Amino acid sequence: MDRITIIKVGGKVVEDPQSLNSLLDQFSKISGYKILVHGGGTTATEIAAKLGIETKMVDGRRITDAANLDVVTMVYGGLINKKIVAGLQARNCNALGLTGADLSLMRAKKRVVGEIDYGYVGDVEDVNSRELRMLLNENVIPVIAPLTHDGNGQLLNTNADTIATEIATELSRYFNVYLFFCFEKKGVMLNQNDETSIIYELDNELFQQYKEEGIINSGMIPKLDNGFNAKKKGVKEVLITNAQNIATGRGTRLI
Amino acid sequence: MDRITIIKVGGKVVEDPQSLNSLLDQFSKISGYKILVHGGGTTATEIAAKLGIETKMVDGRRITDAANLDVVTMVYGGLINKKIVAGLQARNCNALGLTGADLSLMRAKKRVVGEIDYGYVGDVEDVNSRELRMLLNENVIPVIAPLTHDGNGQLLNTNADTIATEIATELSRYFNVYLFFCFEKKGVMLNQNDETSIIYELDNELFQQYKEEGIINSGMIPKLDNGFNAKKKGVKEVLITNAQNIATGRGTRLI
Repeated sequence: MDRITIIKVGGKVVEDPQSLNSLLDQFSKISGYKILVHGGGTTATEIAAKLGIETKMVDGRRITDAANLDVVTMVYGGLINKKIVAGLQARNCNALGLTGADLSLMRAKKRVVGEIDYGYVGDVEDVNSRELRMLLNENVIPVIAPLTHDGNGQLLNTNADTIATEIATELSRYFNVYLFFCFEKKGVMLNQNDETSIIYELDNELFQQYKEEGIINSGMIPKLDNGFNAKKKGVKEVLITNAQNIATGRGTRLI
Repeated sequence: MDRITIIKVGGKVVEDPQSLNSLLDQFSKISGYKILVHGGGTTATEIAAKLGIETKMVDGRRITDAANLDVVTMVYGGLINKKIVAGLQARNCNALGLTGADLSLMRAKKRVVGEIDYGYVGDVEDVNSRELRMLLNENVIPVIAPLTHDGNGQLLNTNADTIATEIATELSRYFNVYLFFCFEKKGVMLNQNDETSIIYELDNELFQQYKEEGIINSGMIPKLDNGFNAKKKGVKEVLITNAQNIATGRGTRLI
């Protein structure tokens, strides 16, 4: 099977022009099939504030009412996605910006209202790997914004880590998938204030132990849950790292 | 040669939910190859105002400084484009939202500063018909936002009528192109207040005469200039009509 590299970058990496340029330099050098999945939450919150729209977060997830859905559609699907695409095209990468609605790449179900009403938030039900593979075969480099649709005309907001994981899992049937979660730090750290405390290899057992002991940063937990889930479902390599280390492959490797 | 239908719709048609739904119903029924090109100026102006960003227009063209470029990138490339795509997917049309940066579909040159500095406005230099035909061959329905790029990472704002014309002209080498400019009225009218005064067939000579006599609405002139230009360059049919008449083909036909 061919190798494919799926890079997920958080909002902070793509929102600062300098770190964005550095990311695009790194990403453009990856050989073979590749996909970039991006966030953009900080900008969405900023634009919402300027528009007088309140941002409510619960456990790091955005409560997405109709007004906030318009904001994330603009910011993720437009502003950030197209800047990345233009930046990659300038680096001879044949980038194509996509949401889950485009080619119906990702169909999702609006989350059922439970204790919390997340609003227009979607849980992925189906990744359209046929269309994704068609694009890859045409040497297209997909740049994916964290939006899905329900198939009935409704756009939905979906977590970017989840999207990267779902795509990686689906494509693992056809490719050796290398999934990189990039954030500001060089990897998962035992001590948040000490960059030398990076865990280079992490297995699920140790992760569960660290989780119970409260050693791993709470923001990291959904990312690692996603990562171990992806590994279990056939993704070949999952790495938690920062954008600078894409080429070297250093960081926290899930084993 | 196969037939392709290129529909250009103005901002007002796609910005009102009811007229958007009606457009998408009509568009989804067109058989064969098709492309939708959309505007979104009214929403861009509204969002800009809410963000405290001033909108300056000269002869109907937006002066696009960096802040306004961000607004149109969000609104055209994100908000409006993705709503259309989700709406078409719900109608079993395999829509894919695109700007000129995606797959480098349209490369443009930033307009040289003359008497007026239009800012980040691009004049199309190249339409990438190879990628466009690849998509069409894969039964993809391109939905195109009026944005281009310069190939060096800079997004540019480009008039949607011009984009539709450039794409139509380029594709006329491979297809019998039917180009529809849709707006609020049923066609070009001799009397702006009388819908029965529609001109059903208009040749360039008559157009020049009406233009000199001030009979044709000034907002219609660039559209007609574009249309006659497209016809001269090989586009098979150019029709000025409203979105309701896509199926019937009624309106002002350029001959």
